[in-house]
Amino acid sequence: MSSSTSSPRAVVLVSGGMDSAVVLALAREQGFDCYALSVAYGQRHSSELEAAARVSQALGAITHKVVVVDLRAIGGSALTADIEVPEQGGAGIPVTYVPARNTIMLSIALGWAEVLGADEIYCGVNAVDYSGYPDCRPAFIEAFERLGNLATKAGVEGHALHVRAPLMRMSKADIVREGVRLNVDFAATVSCYNADIAGRACAHCDACRLRADGFIAAGVSDPTHYV
Amino acid sequence: MSSSTSSPRAVVLVSGGMDSAVVLALAREQGFDCYALSVAYGQRHSSELEAAARVSQALGAITHKVVVVDLRAIGGSALTADIEVPEQGGAGIPVTYVPARNTIMLSIALGWAEVLGADEIYCGVNAVDYSGYPDCRPAFIEAFERLGNLATKAGVEGHALHVRAPLMRMSKADIVREGVRLNVDFAATVSCYNADIAGRACAHCDACRLRADGFIAAGVSDPTHYV
Repeated sequence: MSSSTSSPRAVVLVSGGMDSAVVLALAREQGFDCYALSVAYGQRHSSELEAAARVSQALGAITHKVVVVDLRAIGGSALTADIEVPEQGGAGIPVTYVPARNTIMLSIALGWAEVLGADEIYCGVNAVDYSGYPDCRPAFIEAFERLGNLATKAGVEGHALHVRAPLMRMSKADIVREGVRLNVDFAATVSCYNADIAGRACAHCDACRLRADGFIAAGVSDPTHYV
Repeated sequence: MSSSTSSPRAVVLVSGGMDSAVVLALAREQGFDCYALSVAYGQRHSSELEAAARVSQALGAITHKVVVVDLRAIGGSALTADIEVPEQGGAGIPVTYVPARNTIMLSIALGWAEVLGADEIYCGVNAVDYSGYPDCRPAFIEAFERLGNLATKAGVEGHALHVRAPLMRMSKADIVREGVRLNVDFAATVSCYNADIAGRACAHCDACRLRADGFIAAGVSDPTHYV
């Protein structure tokens, strides 16, 4: 199937991790011209943004944009402030939770969707392995879709905006299997909270453990580059 | 009334314009410790951010933070892209509409509120003089409040977040009168889309005309610095 100017458009949030790579491949399979968006919110390393650019190109996005939002100004997370990333997850909401991150990323995707005339926003939000993040629940996505239809010209002009989270109810093993089916090159993705400058993973943080367990549970050999 | 460490906290979106100055004064009057937030979304001039800092200090905010979100990357508005700001408003949604601006600004306020443990977000959104912007309607604010309660720890922990838009149903003249009552120094505020580097207004753009008409309708002499 070739991409044509009449294909409908989708904005796809691409982080550089494995989940959003699978989401991009799914949106392409659905026939959308995909506009990949990464939000740089003051992450402590840039290797995931480099992975996002690689993944976007490899999976046929029309373009990949990076919007910078410096959340270090408001602090509050081990991912953006001087709080140590823990090796072992505890109970409750983890310190790696970035306040309102998904709300902020979806808001920027909403703005770009409006500029592009795209009625679809795809994201990799997942409720199964969500580690207690409040903005990874189905009710959150539904509320954002409702907000998006009130916030933009789409709502005024009467065509509906959709926010798609196709991985919402998948386990990490399901996501690995779906990526294998769609020929996603997982070696090009970076999930680790502590990845080094070359994008190599630490193997010890929550994100690494979830990812490694997913490959084991799916019975797929793990192509991750570890330190 | 002196500010104490036990006062409840509010995040107040302060743009540098007259509306958000009145909102900050109202939130202070309600007894909140106010944390003023400006979102720099790639405006074509910085004089409104300087006005925001002046206004925040003059009206007793605890602090004023600027979070940078470079919306020029996604384009689509005369305020952030190379589209000329019109002197006369037309029908429909104007070219000065910034896609998803209020959604993005409220999202960042939501993140900071969560970090601060603030259960109140104040903004100057107004439906009367809203010039056709879809994200200035009461239903938008209600939908954002609902989203905010699902998106954050507040929702999980069971205390409610409130999004306040106290100017929603006020005319520009009402806002001027309310500011006079609260001793807001309107000369320190900048509303103009084309303000010069010293913050002086053009007197011709939509924002200038709305503001000037407000002073006339309120019977208050206009302290605006014009070019």
